[in-house]
Amino acid sequence: MTDASLRGPRLDEIHAAAARIEAYVHRTPVYTCRALDELAGAALFFKCENLQKCGSFKIRGASNAIAQMDSRALEHGVATHSSGNHGAALALAARNFGAKAYVVMPETAPSIKKRAVAGYGAEVSFCGPSLSSREESLAALVARTGASVVHPYDDDRIIAGQGTLALELLEAVRDLDLVVVPVGGGGLISGVSTAVTALSPTTRVIGVEPEGADDARRSIESGRRQAASAPNSIADGLLAELSERTFRIIRNHVDRMVAVSEAEIITAMRLIWERMKLIAEPSAAVALAAILSGAIGARGTRIGIVLSGGNADLDALPWTAQR
Amino acid sequence: MTDASLRGPRLDEIHAAAARIEAYVHRTPVYTCRALDELAGAALFFKCENLQKCGSFKIRGASNAIAQMDSRALEHGVATHSSGNHGAALALAARNFGAKAYVVMPETAPSIKKRAVAGYGAEVSFCGPSLSSREESLAALVARTGASVVHPYDDDRIIAGQGTLALELLEAVRDLDLVVVPVGGGGLISGVSTAVTALSPTTRVIGVEPEGADDARRSIESGRRQAASAPNSIADGLLAELSERTFRIIRNHVDRMVAVSEAEIITAMRLIWERMKLIAEPSAAVALAAILSGAIGARGTRIGIVLSGGNADLDALPWTAQR
Repeated sequence: MTDASLRGPRLDEIHAAAARIEAYVHRTPVYTCRALDELAGAALFFKCENLQKCGSFKIRGASNAIAQMDSRALEHGVATHSSGNHGAALALAARNFGAKAYVVMPETAPSIKKRAVAGYGAEVSFCGPSLSSREESLAALVARTGASVVHPYDDDRIIAGQGTLALELLEAVRDLDLVVVPVGGGGLISGVSTAVTALSPTTRVIGVEPEGADDARRSIESGRRQAASAPNSIADGLLAELSERTFRIIRNHVDRMVAVSEAEIITAMRLIWERMKLIAEPSAAVALAAILSGAIGARGTRIGIVLSGGNADLDALPWTAQR
Repeated sequence: MTDASLRGPRLDEIHAAAARIEAYVHRTPVYTCRALDELAGAALFFKCENLQKCGSFKIRGASNAIAQMDSRALEHGVATHSSGNHGAALALAARNFGAKAYVVMPETAPSIKKRAVAGYGAEVSFCGPSLSSREESLAALVARTGASVVHPYDDDRIIAGQGTLALELLEAVRDLDLVVVPVGGGGLISGVSTAVTALSPTTRVIGVEPEGADDARRSIESGRRQAASAPNSIADGLLAELSERTFRIIRNHVDRMVAVSEAEIITAMRLIWERMKLIAEPSAAVALAAILSGAIGARGTRIGIVLSGGNADLDALPWTAQR
């Protein structure tokens, strides 16, 4: 038995998303770096979503979801709970479409993130740090406002939006052997792998998680969706667990899942800052970490790397904290 | 009486430099940032030389100087004393032309800079931290090797090379009211102002120094070249003083010199990291600092900003040191 509501977007829906969101997102550059190529023994092509509006790819999916809502729904606004990039992206996308955004954040979220979400005009409300507290607060908010909840990844509109970056990557670079993608809840890799396998069947897609949040790797290896029990990593954008939808898409389209250690993430992040002069957040560094650690056999290949975001905390750099 | 040897390069020499170095440098992007535009009340166009090879514009001048040396001179190599970006750029440019580079560095230079210069294949020798110690060591090295000294800025080949970035900026952006440039020894602004005044006479060029190293401002205001007495700033690329050559060029082509405080530099640097997701070194942040501080009246104008380099020390960020 298959549940059609969980099928994931088709390639034509990703193309439609690209046309729909074009005015609201940057077409980000693809950078190369000779020093990192030498370290990897491979040709690396970085799709720089850290230079995207709001500092991450999340604006793609959020824009694609809101662009498809009818005016009546938009009147009541959109809502989510997020302490991270999805909240900020939904706030900006809502503003672009003249809609109100409600974002539930834990009181413990860094003040810089609270300011960022509020800065895009969202109404921020606070809750306790647990998932149940977040969900209760969101449910109460929806009951009060009638806002439409936009989930950060368990939504084909979101997945199709994130997949648009793969269209741009494949237009910019030919003959990729691999595309390597960070994995949290799986929305990004679901969209990217759907586009890549349809457009370039010889290109394999590999997902990367932190060792401390490797539910997707365990799920794919066991063939059954596993919970993320007490996920913990400096890569704060990758702590969510797969939904049934993203699990199915990954199983169909992704070649392999690998995991990297905290030290490997920090080393890769610092190399991106130092050699490329680009700010990458920890979650964005896991793909390079997997290549340099040897978790992915890279030598002699051409690899697309999704540099997913640049919203790093500039007051607490992990390499200075380590000393 | 005029000294023809101090005239500075003409526009056609800058065009010739651009053709000569094309294969050895990046054509760097020009980025905009809506958040910074809003803060400045102006349209800002950042010429991103922090994304240049070696992490700064210095590779342009170094490549242009070495490309014009005859093979006999190249056999003996090139030499300079530099603890900064010019040393690394000269090392890479020499390697690109199959020549040997000798770089005299103070023993006190950060180990990351020693490694960078050595990493490009230069022979590094060490001296005491004083200017006289550097000059003595360099003279002894030249006597021993016959290497040609390439000065970091008092050289028309260097100035013409640095000016090539202005050609690219003016091709990328039309109708600039201002171009704002960091000033140390004056090589960068000499090349940029020569190109801008020739190609776009209505565009004014303004130079920016740290208050603690404002010899160029004092020189222009007094009409006579002033010494940089005990220059001191976090902007370590801007501590050198003008030569007679760069002083004359600036007097002819630059509209005004302004200075910014250390706190203004740090604030601007952090904004570039946080909002643009780009690593800029302190010296590269002075232009934005002058705009945001009000030292340059910017409101409603279109401004080209030379983001001169990205070689920041990632172990000692100024905003964390301040706390």
